[in-house]
Amino acid sequence: MARRRSERMIVTKVTGVGAERTARRGPDELIVEEPMSIQLDGTLVSTTMRTPGHDHELAAGFCFTEGLLADAPVTGVRYCADASAIDSDFNVVTVETGGRAPTPTPRLGNTSSSCGWCGSDQLDDLVGRLDPVPPSVPISLDVIAAMPDRVQAAQRLFETTGSVHAAAAFDRDGDILVLREDVGRHNAVDKVVGAMLLGLTDARTDGTSTSTSVGIPATGLGLFVSGRASIEMVQKAWAAGFSTVVAVSAPTALAVDAARRSGMVLVGFVRGSTFNVYAPERLPT
Amino acid sequence: MARRRSERMIVTKVTGVGAERTARRGPDELIVEEPMSIQLDGTLVSTTMRTPGHDHELAAGFCFTEGLLADAPVTGVRYCADASAIDSDFNVVTVETGGRAPTPTPRLGNTSSSCGWCGSDQLDDLVGRLDPVPPSVPISLDVIAAMPDRVQAAQRLFETTGSVHAAAAFDRDGDILVLREDVGRHNAVDKVVGAMLLGLTDARTDGTSTSTSVGIPATGLGLFVSGRASIEMVQKAWAAGFSTVVAVSAPTALAVDAARRSGMVLVGFVRGSTFNVYAPERLPT
Repeated sequence: MARRRSERMIVTKVTGVGAERTARRGPDELIVEEPMSIQLDGTLVSTTMRTPGHDHELAAGFCFTEGLLADAPVTGVRYCADASAIDSDFNVVTVETGGRAPTPTPRLGNTSSSCGWCGSDQLDDLVGRLDPVPPSVPISLDVIAAMPDRVQAAQRLFETTGSVHAAAAFDRDGDILVLREDVGRHNAVDKVVGAMLLGLTDARTDGTSTSTSVGIPATGLGLFVSGRASIEMVQKAWAAGFSTVVAVSAPTALAVDAARRSGMVLVGFVRGSTFNVYAPERLPT
Repeated sequence: MARRRSERMIVTKVTGVGAERTARRGPDELIVEEPMSIQLDGTLVSTTMRTPGHDHELAAGFCFTEGLLADAPVTGVRYCADASAIDSDFNVVTVETGGRAPTPTPRLGNTSSSCGWCGSDQLDDLVGRLDPVPPSVPISLDVIAAMPDRVQAAQRLFETTGSVHAAAAFDRDGDILVLREDVGRHNAVDKVVGAMLLGLTDARTDGTSTSTSVGIPATGLGLFVSGRASIEMVQKAWAAGFSTVVAVSAPTALAVDAARRSGMVLVGFVRGSTFNVYAPERLPT
């Protein structure tokens, strides 16, 4: 069941300029990406390119953060069993609610030609669907500034491959409760949320986490994301109830709009002790 | 028709540690992301979060690089006209082939529960669908090493926002023929390919390009991508016939497999004069 998350390949490493240039062959550790299909009660809802590992958490987290579960509890998560396709078994995961989740509706590739939705409509839908993030004790600016280094130090795949995204739930002390890595930023967030939803955040499944029991909603907790904060990331964090989102890079304008309407704190562009607070619009004095 | 690609917001800028920390409010330029739906001959094929601008190129490029056109020529690209939804008009684009493209089949959200496809199958499909990249004069290692700085210097949105992806087609002299920026890496590539497909690469539409006529297939040309090279990026570059792909960051293992089978040169992890050549497996001596 343990899937490879990185793969060693022989590549040509070039360094130097002009006559000083050298090219030598040597091993390089590359991140693995494979497609995984997610089903909800047997209906295909998404296929995503992901790094294998924590697949059940990814599937459950995706269904949750995309609002597909509504209020239905997850009764099971399993790989799709198909004796005739052993190789692909582990690339299809079904989330089960015993039919209590609404029947998923196709969101892509339908055959109508109706005009689509625009950003403001979508944001209104989000505000209508999600409750405001409840008030909580704010996470200190010192903790926020420290998170990029803390998370990177704990990233095992980044250490070997030099290139993979991470998401991490952390508490007010800056302790990492659950950390997940993936080739896709959104997958890393879904894995974190899925782990919290399924109660898989203890040391048994993740060496970097404490035994603190954490669940969803993640009230009072922070979500760290490597890279940018797009609307997708803020939406997922909001759905999971995180009070604070810390992104290494910049958010988009739409992500800031959403964060300001959610009541969460959104921090970005963290460079050492320098960062921007994008939401709330004004820091409380 | 000129849509805002960035938006100014007032944010709180924090710097310094402990008692030395200051927080002052000031303007920040944020990248815009809005959903855009792409239709092929009236059938919805994708909705993507993109930075407005070059929407027709994005739509045409997407349909082309995803293999949806087959060999059908694009006869027109237009915004979806719907007098009752003025605000969303510019977020729906239809690519027209006069019905000569195959009828798009839904790829997500269908109602069957059949087990999916796995990475190796998908790669075999790709190899079956796409011809090998034809031989061409290789782009020099000096040109490759120079591309990240050259492209970043020409990135106008990056200059103002500090955070946006770029893709650029360049020739053997390292001259940028077409450069596009987008919140999504794959969108930036589709915009470049779409511009070349529609013949929109002259100085009139893009201040950074020369008047050289370039088209598809992009034989002998290089494609620069900021960020990583995932299978999606290599697939799109291969479909467009680029001979070389240069990624600032690392490729995935699957992207390297695909590049090696395509015949293209794949370079990644470019840091000054140091970089890795991932494909071909051995540099010709």
